[in-house]
Amino acid sequence: MNDRFLRACRREPVDCTPVWFMRQAGRYMADYRELRKRYSLLEIVRQPELAVAVTLQPVDVIDVDAAILFSDLLVPFTPMGLDFEFIKGEGPSIHYPIRSASDVGRLRTFDPRESLAHVLETIRILRRELHDRVPLIGFGGAPFTLAAYAIEGGPSTTYAHTKAFMYAQPEAWHKLGAMFAALIADYMRAQIDAGAQAIQIFDSWAGALSRSDYREFALPHSRAIFDQLSDSGVPLIHFGVGATAILNDLAEAGGDVIGLDWRLPLDEAWARISDRAVQGNLDPTALLGPRERMFAAADDVLRRAGGRPGHIFNLGHGILPSTSLEQVQALAKHVHAATLAG
Amino acid sequence: MNDRFLRACRREPVDCTPVWFMRQAGRYMADYRELRKRYSLLEIVRQPELAVAVTLQPVDVIDVDAAILFSDLLVPFTPMGLDFEFIKGEGPSIHYPIRSASDVGRLRTFDPRESLAHVLETIRILRRELHDRVPLIGFGGAPFTLAAYAIEGGPSTTYAHTKAFMYAQPEAWHKLGAMFAALIADYMRAQIDAGAQAIQIFDSWAGALSRSDYREFALPHSRAIFDQLSDSGVPLIHFGVGATAILNDLAEAGGDVIGLDWRLPLDEAWARISDRAVQGNLDPTALLGPRERMFAAADDVLRRAGGRPGHIFNLGHGILPSTSLEQVQALAKHVHAATLAG
Repeated sequence: MNDRFLRACRREPVDCTPVWFMRQAGRYMADYRELRKRYSLLEIVRQPELAVAVTLQPVDVIDVDAAILFSDLLVPFTPMGLDFEFIKGEGPSIHYPIRSASDVGRLRTFDPRESLAHVLETIRILRRELHDRVPLIGFGGAPFTLAAYAIEGGPSTTYAHTKAFMYAQPEAWHKLGAMFAALIADYMRAQIDAGAQAIQIFDSWAGALSRSDYREFALPHSRAIFDQLSDSGVPLIHFGVGATAILNDLAEAGGDVIGLDWRLPLDEAWARISDRAVQGNLDPTALLGPRERMFAAADDVLRRAGGRPGHIFNLGHGILPSTSLEQVQALAKHVHAATLAG
Repeated sequence: MNDRFLRACRREPVDCTPVWFMRQAGRYMADYRELRKRYSLLEIVRQPELAVAVTLQPVDVIDVDAAILFSDLLVPFTPMGLDFEFIKGEGPSIHYPIRSASDVGRLRTFDPRESLAHVLETIRILRRELHDRVPLIGFGGAPFTLAAYAIEGGPSTTYAHTKAFMYAQPEAWHKLGAMFAALIADYMRAQIDAGAQAIQIFDSWAGALSRSDYREFALPHSRAIFDQLSDSGVPLIHFGVGATAILNDLAEAGGDVIGLDWRLPLDEAWARISDRAVQGNLDPTALLGPRERMFAAADDVLRRAGGRPGHIFNLGHGILPSTSLEQVQALAKHVHAATLAG
């Protein structure tokens, strides 16, 4: 079995630096675009055979050292009673965003083994089909990011509704945060039981918070998830975007591996959280540039990682839809070759 | 004359901490919304009597220690041949975004004293009408942010077009950056000649860049502006958003005052750029919360500033449209009272 990725998560020596890419299955791939002509994103997520096929697409054609379950952060919203849809070119739209304590009170808890059985079935099939070629990563959203989606109703640049809710209704906020923490911890546990060999918690929007707000409103609920999964036996990855100012706080909340965006040079970020493994951190737009420039930028990341155990190569955010598959393939090969040689 | 703001820019002692707010004239004010029923944003900007009226609206009703010219970062685009409009709910839309070296070649330089005479006239009238009540701040965009607007064609979350352009066509990029630097330096000089008593350079999108990209593609062109204005005799403010990872680099590019968003606690940010004045850094969403919570957050900023000369109180970004005028009024009074007492 290729266990480079799992070994790096545990900060054990590896033969070469493991690579995977956030959104390695997605719109940049012709096979995926072809499937999306017939099925919506949620239709793919809800039909295990389709989700399995999409998850495996990059594993078959790119030298990645991990597969990541094809799903969406908002999948738990439906069984909670938060209906949503994806609007072309805009992203998710929640039909009735949460704006009051009574909205929070109306949310339902659920058993992921029943309500999200299709996700767990996808994981079980994937483990069989992967034949231990590479480990399988499961994932979920951090409470702040999920609550912000639920309150904003969709993408936001200011998070004005979310923060106004936090400040004016802290009790309802913490009830919502605790509810997401319990549900996501349970959902992640179910993913692990079904066969997920690592878990990534995405706090994609945490970077919008000041440090004091992160510590008051987000950290306790994220920590609850990591605490509840600490005996799970699988590596836990904690990823935030634009989170330079709260990197230590994010690490304090938990995670064996801290996922970094591209803003801080990797060595500086790693020096701040030296007791963890790190994942990252090439700017996804680097893949849109000339190949030699992309390689040079990747080499800079590798040079800053310095060959120390505990580095997983990834982008600082998901692969952009306009990326060419050939660039992704070349990058994965390059990272392996460069670190084997070193 | 109330010269608290100018004294703080020069890190001289003040009787109490000066306050102004980014977007202190804007949609959160009923008077402004009333005017916008009859005139578009660009119509207001282009008619000095209207721009003067809007600039003065907050000065008349809020205890601010500076006025800021009512205008828009993209005003120089029109005389460059980059037509644009504001689309309701979406922001600016550039009709023919720049995507190639030949697009850059077609851009026109201009003399702001002719092509933007209306802005300079607004400044002259404002100085007369202000009667030295408070100083007047002029402003312009940093080359990276302006180039990114011109290339993306409007707001972006990924800056994929901009960065792909930088990486693939660095020569054309630097030509564009140098052109913006020369035009903005000239435009700022014209604003100062017309009466602007301080200048703020907005690099609103610089936080999207990795440090190495900022240093290669943005810093040289921003520095050119600060260098060319260094003998102007007025304080220069340099403001970025989400720029925690490049704060020192931004300061290296120039500015007597560094404008901070809310992500990094003010004392930490100031420790990193201790040879400058700082402006900020309350999260604009704090004004959407309960008053006592807003005061406590402002007090935290003031405590971290520690009464040292060289702090201008401001938000970490513009006032949000959903903010109530009463909160803004109360906040300005509170900052003055809290620092007079201290």
